[in-house]
Amino acid sequence: MQNKYTYSFKEGNKDMVEILGGKGANLSEMVSLGIPVPSGFVITTESCALYYKNNKSLPSNIKKQIDKELSLLEKKIKKKLGDKNDPLLVSVRSGASVSMPGMMDTILNLGLNDISVKALVKKTSNRRFVLDSYRRFIQMYANVVEGIESKNFEKILDEIKKTKELISDTEFSQDDLEVIIEKFKKVYKKYTKKTFPQSPKDQLYRAIEAVFESWNNDRAISYRKMHGIDNLLGTAVTVQEMVFGNMGEDCATGVCFSRNPSTGENEFYGEYLVNAQGEDVVAGVRTPIEIKMLKTQNPKIYKQLVEIKDKLETHYKDIQDMEFTIEKNKLYFLQTRNGKTTAKARIKIVVDLVDEGILTKQEALLKIDPNSLNQLLHKQFKQKDLEKNKPIAIGLAASPGASVGEIVFSAKDACEKKDLGRNVILVRKETSPEDIEGINSAVGILTSTGGMTSHAAVVARGMGKCCVCGCTKLNVDEEKKIIYVGEEKFFEGDVISVDGSTGKVYKGEIAVEEVQFSKDFLTIMKWSDEFRKMRVRTNADTKNDAKKALELGAEGIGLCRTEHMFFEQKRLKLIRELILADNSKERQVVIEKLLPLQTKDFLDLFDVMKGLSVNVRLLDPPLHEFLPTEDNEIKKLAKQLNVTQNKLKQKILNLSEVNPMLGHRGCRLGITYPEITKMQVRAMLKALKEKKCNLEIMVPLVGSVEEFKNQKEIILEIAREQKINNLKIGVMIEVPRAGIKADEIALEAEFFSFGTNDLTQMTLGFSRDDIGKFIQEYLDKGIYKADPFVSLDQTGVGELIKIAVDKAKKVKQNIKLGICGEHGGDPSSIEFFHNTGLDYVSCSPFRVPIARLVCAQATIKQNLQLA
Amino acid sequence: MQNKYTYSFKEGNKDMVEILGGKGANLSEMVSLGIPVPSGFVITTESCALYYKNNKSLPSNIKKQIDKELSLLEKKIKKKLGDKNDPLLVSVRSGASVSMPGMMDTILNLGLNDISVKALVKKTSNRRFVLDSYRRFIQMYANVVEGIESKNFEKILDEIKKTKELISDTEFSQDDLEVIIEKFKKVYKKYTKKTFPQSPKDQLYRAIEAVFESWNNDRAISYRKMHGIDNLLGTAVTVQEMVFGNMGEDCATGVCFSRNPSTGENEFYGEYLVNAQGEDVVAGVRTPIEIKMLKTQNPKIYKQLVEIKDKLETHYKDIQDMEFTIEKNKLYFLQTRNGKTTAKARIKIVVDLVDEGILTKQEALLKIDPNSLNQLLHKQFKQKDLEKNKPIAIGLAASPGASVGEIVFSAKDACEKKDLGRNVILVRKETSPEDIEGINSAVGILTSTGGMTSHAAVVARGMGKCCVCGCTKLNVDEEKKIIYVGEEKFFEGDVISVDGSTGKVYKGEIAVEEVQFSKDFLTIMKWSDEFRKMRVRTNADTKNDAKKALELGAEGIGLCRTEHMFFEQKRLKLIRELILADNSKERQVVIEKLLPLQTKDFLDLFDVMKGLSVNVRLLDPPLHEFLPTEDNEIKKLAKQLNVTQNKLKQKILNLSEVNPMLGHRGCRLGITYPEITKMQVRAMLKALKEKKCNLEIMVPLVGSVEEFKNQKEIILEIAREQKINNLKIGVMIEVPRAGIKADEIALEAEFFSFGTNDLTQMTLGFSRDDIGKFIQEYLDKGIYKADPFVSLDQTGVGELIKIAVDKAKKVKQNIKLGICGEHGGDPSSIEFFHNTGLDYVSCSPFRVPIARLVCAQATIKQNLQLA
Repeated sequence: MQNKYTYSFKEGNKDMVEILGGKGANLSEMVSLGIPVPSGFVITTESCALYYKNNKSLPSNIKKQIDKELSLLEKKIKKKLGDKNDPLLVSVRSGASVSMPGMMDTILNLGLNDISVKALVKKTSNRRFVLDSYRRFIQMYANVVEGIESKNFEKILDEIKKTKELISDTEFSQDDLEVIIEKFKKVYKKYTKKTFPQSPKDQLYRAIEAVFESWNNDRAISYRKMHGIDNLLGTAVTVQEMVFGNMGEDCATGVCFSRNPSTGENEFYGEYLVNAQGEDVVAGVRTPIEIKMLKTQNPKIYKQLVEIKDKLETHYKDIQDMEFTIEKNKLYFLQTRNGKTTAKARIKIVVDLVDEGILTKQEALLKIDPNSLNQLLHKQFKQKDLEKNKPIAIGLAASPGASVGEIVFSAKDACEKKDLGRNVILVRKETSPEDIEGINSAVGILTSTGGMTSHAAVVARGMGKCCVCGCTKLNVDEEKKIIYVGEEKFFEGDVISVDGSTGKVYKGEIAVEEVQFSKDFLTIMKWSDEFRKMRVRTNADTKNDAKKALELGAEGIGLCRTEHMFFEQKRLKLIRELILADNSKERQVVIEKLLPLQTKDFLDLFDVMKGLSVNVRLLDPPLHEFLPTEDNEIKKLAKQLNVTQNKLKQKILNLSEVNPMLGHRGCRLGITYPEITKMQVRAMLKALKEKKCNLEIMVPLVGSVEEFKNQKEIILEIAREQKINNLKIGVMIEVPRAGIKADEIALEAEFFSFGTNDLTQMTLGFSRDDIGKFIQEYLDKGIYKADPFVSLDQTGVGELIKIAVDKAKKVKQNIKLGICGEHGGDPSSIEFFHNTGLDYVSCSPFRVPIARLVCAQATIKQNLQLA
Repeated sequence: MQNKYTYSFKEGNKDMVEILGGKGANLSEMVSLGIPVPSGFVITTESCALYYKNNKSLPSNIKKQIDKELSLLEKKIKKKLGDKNDPLLVSVRSGASVSMPGMMDTILNLGLNDISVKALVKKTSNRRFVLDSYRRFIQMYANVVEGIESKNFEKILDEIKKTKELISDTEFSQDDLEVIIEKFKKVYKKYTKKTFPQSPKDQLYRAIEAVFESWNNDRAISYRKMHGIDNLLGTAVTVQEMVFGNMGEDCATGVCFSRNPSTGENEFYGEYLVNAQGEDVVAGVRTPIEIKMLKTQNPKIYKQLVEIKDKLETHYKDIQDMEFTIEKNKLYFLQTRNGKTTAKARIKIVVDLVDEGILTKQEALLKIDPNSLNQLLHKQFKQKDLEKNKPIAIGLAASPGASVGEIVFSAKDACEKKDLGRNVILVRKETSPEDIEGINSAVGILTSTGGMTSHAAVVARGMGKCCVCGCTKLNVDEEKKIIYVGEEKFFEGDVISVDGSTGKVYKGEIAVEEVQFSKDFLTIMKWSDEFRKMRVRTNADTKNDAKKALELGAEGIGLCRTEHMFFEQKRLKLIRELILADNSKERQVVIEKLLPLQTKDFLDLFDVMKGLSVNVRLLDPPLHEFLPTEDNEIKKLAKQLNVTQNKLKQKILNLSEVNPMLGHRGCRLGITYPEITKMQVRAMLKALKEKKCNLEIMVPLVGSVEEFKNQKEIILEIAREQKINNLKIGVMIEVPRAGIKADEIALEAEFFSFGTNDLTQMTLGFSRDDIGKFIQEYLDKGIYKADPFVSLDQTGVGELIKIAVDKAKKVKQNIKLGICGEHGGDPSSIEFFHNTGLDYVSCSPFRVPIARLVCAQATIKQNLQLA
């Protein structure tokens, strides 16, 4: 059989999206449902690919199939393209299998020429409408097919309007339109050296080619890149009989939703315009009327509309976003698709659809975009207030939420003002570990440099605090305490509003909506928990983090970074003394002081966790991260520690590293300074004796089983000392070698937790602090599809994780496997972890609900595949 | 059958080294060859392990077997331990399967007590000898078995010598010795609260236990750690009848070699002492006599000695190192083992042994330690001159050779003095890429910090230049131009001698021996080439490197680091302009200037290589490596480039990276600055058209096939422009992800070269610049057996290489595979590469002969295993 490149609407259905595109498939589906749709056919996406293969020209076999479809269409509706009595007009529209709104081209009213115009005038008795359609078609065709810029035509319209003192296009007289058509034809000739094509068949072929061509225009290419769409053949083309909502008062055109897309209420929602074209609804020249008005204006049509929208919603099992036209009291549907909604609405809709028996719980869960939940978990600016304000700058939406406060420029100022009961926003070039208390005191963080995984971003996300990073338009002078934004200046104490969900920064105060979990949200979470197989833990370092995470449904702590306990002022001083100690005796003195503090930290944390699992990681960061780098900070510290500034500088220099990420950190610290491991474990175990929990001790940055054995022996020594048995001791898998040697390590370890941040850094050789210099270019060129620190590099790092899981399970079937990198909160990564067979993910508290949902979705998808 | 823990010499043989230890196995072997050996038996290494398992006490079943062996021995030689008429005396010696000279304990004259002393006096009629033996035995036993410090006994001897004004121990009268024995017994009682044991059986058990105990003394443990010995059960113990070379003028003791171990000449070599014990030969109290003198002194014994040494050499197929004793005109052999020799001697010996029909060529090649060839490839200090000097400091032997020159402290001074015809040694804290010309001008390099893979070390090895690194005892003040070494100071112009083969630094000039390849050396190389399967290439960046490598047998270039072409002053200026250019137009101007220079570089290189393979790597290092870091250098450069110092500083700061090793480098440069790739490829191809070679273009730091495809497309574009076909384009595999994705990459690449330096850094998460802070502790604790940058981490990084090779060959059976990291010159790593199926190794020029030998050894070993 010959390959089939065209399908009449009757031949298609909604599952043929891949070859017919979304538009073509849904039009076909509606036809099969008996819904009135103007007749037409689809040219497949494959044809688009063949067009490019054939040196950008329609292959003759495809042309033949088009001819055949066209004559079937003409026969069916008894009109002929270009006919001198009853001419057929068609629209030629693009439509890929994934929606790319407005990116590609469309031509309407095709089939008009000097002859068909006359015929149509005769038939419609509406000369003005026909002439107006012709001039629009010439302009559209010239622009889309020949690439003649629209301004060449607009100029002509403007001139006539000026001469005749007209305000709007609708005021052109029929004579004006005749003149305009002639002038348009001249412009066409000037640019193409040809007369405007009078053969409707030629018009059609050229229009189809032009739509194919628009698949690869700059906008479309960059849209696909931005959305990671890279596996499509091309766009399909829909050729469909024109229907007109602008042929008189018995005509109309409208857009409607089967439910309210903003609140999710089950009410018919939409608007329409009498005697108008679709464009007019969008353009906003006239104010459309609420759809409910149609009930009185035209009860018959309204009833039909309601019946159809109900039918479509039940059929598609989702809120529908539809376009319709009424031509001379006859209703036509021109499009239907699943509607875009707010997160709140979506949740209400799917829960309602389950109640209505239209969706199963599983189907309902799959219909929620997990990332959209972010909107529900964080404060938001009131939409209406937001619309009144223009942002002064836009940065990276690093940690969602809405915050309003006075500008401060230092951690110290943040703490002081907070103590006075003021809301402050900490504004810095970038933050450092020394700022941790300041970050904690601020309601929001704003930095001018730094990316999605910069210090500020990571810490803020961990705290669930609103943060915008890399806001390069800001020029922050921390010393003079001024922000320059273009011509404007902002000073300490000035109020700004920061939107961590969009990256936008506003001058002054914008009203904020508080978070309230709806009943529907809780239902969705309950259902998620019913279906998911993976457990969800949280990364939490303090009792406050832990409390928040428990509220959001965390089932334990997957990563407690003990170093974060050291950043508080008093401890920072002690840890600095520890680092700068000259010998192990001096070190021991400091250790003794640190022990009770750390014991208290653990006690507080275990208390909150009430018997749940708590995974505590031993000290991880390079020690020099605790030391100041700036001269005046060094001066202060020298005084505090009673050493000369030079000596201190020398020590800091000695500790500095060329590649700290690959340096003296992780278990390398615990091996060279066993007293630190001992102190930390002793603190944990002392706390454990008072407050029970399922403690897991994790050794970081293990590359060789010998490293782990060394630390395990020290941990067991303290366990014997503290008379504690059955301690769970495991490994953070974050060095590639650990993945390769996972079998050897698994024999010794009771659990693995994949530290995907570092694992990504080392497996890819990407320093996350330094990729700023090339990552954008890498994404633009498609070398990586996504920032590998945001979404797991599944085929590279993921493959290594798979290797590790296989090796580990081969020697220890029941080894507990988790993941605690930033990827633990990323939907596509979570799905990967589910499919790889991990037992749990751990993520920052505010990602916990998202993870719960994704875990359920992953299970449901897997079951569907198995079925 | 019951487990066997003891073997009489008759039961053993040389292949039982693992259970009998080297000493026991060789004594057994000599017995089976009919060579006179004092009778005895061996307690196995397994017994040592069981001793420890049994809470450090001899298990009774082992004791029983010892008893049985002892009574068989007593029966055989018709003497009894502790007998009152004809008492047996034995030695109890340690002996592991790997020689650990002097690390463990020995007890002689065991069996002496108050009764057997009397019997022995009667039998030998030599009361003085017997008493002297007794007092020695008490001291040795007390020390080894009871841990009583020797100084407690020495004090007594010293007092008597003082009172009696004696000079040497040999002057003690028999009465003195009686007194000494009584006093010694008192010391023993004081420390142990027991009388000196009179039961010879107890003495024997305790002595055996003590030898087992010495397996785990501090010295032995650290020796094993140092030599990476970690798979042994323990030491064996040899119990052997005592024979005495000190019972009169018809007695003697000696040490001899079957050939000259220093020159390799086939001549009997050694020395002996009449009426003396083994210790006396070693202690050097009396000057021993050349072995040849024995020919006249005792022709019968001499003849027997020569016959036996010939027999042993032919039997062991190697030069023998033997110990013998003559007791009352009867010859006994106490030990034989393969002799340690100089590299020169070893080569001569094995070539001679092949000529003599004793060895096959394959056996001969296996008998050479590849690293020892270093001695033959580099200048050496004359041994005699060396012995007269004490080093002022010792650092890391980073690049072998001997150099003498005046101290200079800067690259500039080095160049200037060199131009005046002076030999200079460049002394720095550490070197940087800016010093490259200075390094080239110096005869030797000495740094106070930096490890075996520091900049100085790597560059010096590449140039075959003598280098000592990490000489921490030196305090180098580069500004004041002074080196402080303890109390001493050295100034610019002072002459020092630096030994890159030992790491030693000497004051003043030491005479140097020039390199001359012996006929034997060339024979060994010829044989190596006959057997090896892997090809050997070299890492060479300049025509001089390449020339040297060809002389040393390289078959091509495996890595030409194009960035090294940029370090010469004029180019450095250009490359800096390139880096600091504000836009691509400015960049293009510099590129145009660089093109002819790089073309010339390649032309020179290809000319030398005469059609052989040349693998050129595209620009690799982070660009900021080309920029100055110190203020006055920045000032100079700012002036040169005509920009303000501040602007330059800002630019340098912008380019600086937190983890440069994981930053903007490798193909990431070529992707973001395609003009650099284009220029480099254009230069190569222009050169290629004039001078043919088998050019391979290598893309560095590839982690994703998309990166490679990007660069390959650019390379092919230039190839089309230059009308060159069949270009070989491949990948440097040095990012772990590339190993994991090797199949995908292999489909696009014609060859892989494993860059094991970076691959080690990223797979282990070790920055080679920073591991100094913990690597020593890691080696001490046995976490890694060797520095993974010196010897490949075969089970980790090596496993990843195996995965990559398997994946690559699965999709492209004939893909060419090589390795070009520092490991390409390391013997055990080369053997691993051979076994993994690589096609070639590439190493620095001076490692080429070593690699040739190791490649042959690997092939021979593999064939032996297959057979």
